[in-house]
Amino acid sequence: PQSRLPALGTTIFTQMSALAAQHQAINLSQGFPDFDGPRLLQERLAHHVARGANQYAPMTGVPALREAIADKTRELYGWQPDSDAEVTVTAGATEALFASITALVRPGDEVICFDPSYDSYAPAVQLAGGVLKRLPLVPPHFRVDWQAFRELVSERTRLVIINTPHNPTATVWHEEDFAALWQAIAPYEIYVLSDEVYEHICFDPQGHTSVLGHASLRQRSIAVSSFGKTFHMTGWKVGYCVAPEALSAEVRKVHQYLTFSVNTPAQFALADMLRAEPEHYRELPDFYRQRRDAFVQALAPGRLELLPCEGTYFLLADYSAISDSDDVSFCRWLTTEVGVAAIPLSVFCADPFPHTLIRLCFAKGPETLSAAAERLVKL
Amino acid sequence: PQSRLPALGTTIFTQMSALAAQHQAINLSQGFPDFDGPRLLQERLAHHVARGANQYAPMTGVPALREAIADKTRELYGWQPDSDAEVTVTAGATEALFASITALVRPGDEVICFDPSYDSYAPAVQLAGGVLKRLPLVPPHFRVDWQAFRELVSERTRLVIINTPHNPTATVWHEEDFAALWQAIAPYEIYVLSDEVYEHICFDPQGHTSVLGHASLRQRSIAVSSFGKTFHMTGWKVGYCVAPEALSAEVRKVHQYLTFSVNTPAQFALADMLRAEPEHYRELPDFYRQRRDAFVQALAPGRLELLPCEGTYFLLADYSAISDSDDVSFCRWLTTEVGVAAIPLSVFCADPFPHTLIRLCFAKGPETLSAAAERLVKL
Ligand SMILES: CSCCC(=O)C(=O)O
Ligand SMILES: CSCCC(=O)C(=O)O
Repeated sequence: PQSRLPALGTTIFTQMSALAAQHQAINLSQGFPDFDGPRLLQERLAHHVARGANQYAPMTGVPALREAIADKTRELYGWQPDSDAEVTVTAGATEALFASITALVRPGDEVICFDPSYDSYAPAVQLAGGVLKRLPLVPPHFRVDWQAFRELVSERTRLVIINTPHNPTATVWHEEDFAALWQAIAPYEIYVLSDEVYEHICFDPQGHTSVLGHASLRQRSIAVSSFGKTFHMTGWKVGYCVAPEALSAEVRKVHQYLTFSVNTPAQFALADMLRAEPEHYRELPDFYRQRRDAFVQALAPGRLELLPCEGTYFLLADYSAISDSDDVSFCRWLTTEVGVAAIPLSVFCADPFPHTLIRLCFAKGPETLSAAAERLVKL
Repeated sequence: PQSRLPALGTTIFTQMSALAAQHQAINLSQGFPDFDGPRLLQERLAHHVARGANQYAPMTGVPALREAIADKTRELYGWQPDSDAEVTVTAGATEALFASITALVRPGDEVICFDPSYDSYAPAVQLAGGVLKRLPLVPPHFRVDWQAFRELVSERTRLVIINTPHNPTATVWHEEDFAALWQAIAPYEIYVLSDEVYEHICFDPQGHTSVLGHASLRQRSIAVSSFGKTFHMTGWKVGYCVAPEALSAEVRKVHQYLTFSVNTPAQFALADMLRAEPEHYRELPDFYRQRRDAFVQALAPGRLELLPCEGTYFLLADYSAISDSDDVSFCRWLTTEVGVAAIPLSVFCADPFPHTLIRLCFAKGPETLSAAAERLVKL
């Protein structure tokens, strides 16, 4: 059949993970931990399955989980959403992003995102008939050029998609970024979709700055997060979004026909987990900082030039001292010949401008990271 | 924000289940069992969680589950799909339906479905920009008028959505229906989306007739099913679709950005279950036939006139001997005053033509069904 997404192939994550498996490479490409989540979470899942919590959850999510999310939001960002009307549980953050874009973007609407951007935004905008405007982040440190942003915003803009901590550049936003964003969009009817799935993996001394902490912005924003990254269970596929009632209502209209509801026992288990061990996510920055620092140190003798990592479990590395091939070829070579799989930065970009950057995932045990570093420093 | 689905409210299932809970009514509205799934399935889930199968599954589904689905398809329908290229695991059948419609329907394309139809088809078509043509099934027994169908088909038709066993009318299709469908669409480039989530709950002596058993049709068809109904675990949200490679490729392009992947431990548990106890789904028709027959018998002294039920766990009942109010009002009254929640047929219809029919779910334990029948026979 004629394709509605003709330019699209299989995601880079699927490709690289398959190539890594094929060549028994150490897989630092697709973002997932090689260690397991908390024992308590697993036990609670088995408990809720055994007690028979196996039928449809409410379309918006089980109340216990929505309430735990609302409480966590207040504690962390100083504002409490209404758990009934403003919190919606989704099949991972991916579904929340897709549902939000589908709910808000009408054919012809302009959508602004930054470049590089996580790869699921563009196809969702395309399927909704939206026109994506990608604003390049400014190298070498991938900051927003707010002057250029203001010039891009217009009456035609419907949605801005932001992401902090940012995948793949590992940068984070501060108050002044949100202030600049608000200033630029306030005059128009523009909504914000804020991808915050790495909210608990932020190394900034001030911690993560959420769109939900900004009193004006949050009235126009859908904040998306996920439990996969926080609890080391990327395969459970439970995410959520927080948005004002009117926006939540629109997202829910799509969500209810897109997946209807989310795995019931996993929702109950996560609700228990959030209540019982909030220190888990409070300790997450330190947990990942240690891994990041050990990995950075192990890579130091080599010729990869590492960029700062302020959040996420990804690290960008410049390989221009090693090779002058393009990043896709370099990543293939790295996987098949060196035995380390990474993600080329250009797959997150509209025009693969001549980056020589690769993304390495450090959500791995110390042995995995030192084995990978050993191979990489030889280059 | 201006809505992309302005006419839509919350699904009837959410509304009625909430009303039932509020009034402590016996809930025969939303379709889910009030008994639990197989012990083995629960044990396998706990096992796979404990062994650490908690990270992203492959985007298309875990191979063990796709292979089990392919083998089951051969055993039941005499044809084996390629488990790599033609089977895709989704977040319930709902996601498979949404992804298929989104992948195939371009703005302006006509889509034919029958009326009444399951309520998720129309919003998905609307969001894709398609034009839905609903062909009324012919009362009293809701058969297809194939002459009228042929007149509806044209160059503009892109997709036909079929559903057997049919929710909500409980009718099933036979070989001659598929033959008529094929005859009507063969001259055009038209695809078929076949919702077969009740494939294992079919009371027809010949068993379920799948689109996958039709050698010509299946080359243009996406067959959708789900494990929720089969294993009494509607809350696990694992479904799948089977389609030729080229169609599967298009569905996967959408699926990978819609949810990316499906709960990993649940997939492994279902793969084990399908291998270990195929008799579970082979025995399902008898299991539900007993419930249906007991419920029908218990209702016999009353004034509800029951329609034949050839498949699904739903029964249509005509209340015209009891009341002349419309079916939505009747269902509200039934829930709040009589203490039995049901679904009004009109919510599955484009124009609520004057039905006096309600849908009762009999996927309930014997005590629940006899308690409900006791209340209903008093009417
Ligand atoms: C959904 S698979 C991709 C995982 C991820 O978020 C990443 O690697 O960037
Ligand atoms: C997805 S909730 C609705 C369940 C169902 O299939 C039905 O009741 O028809």
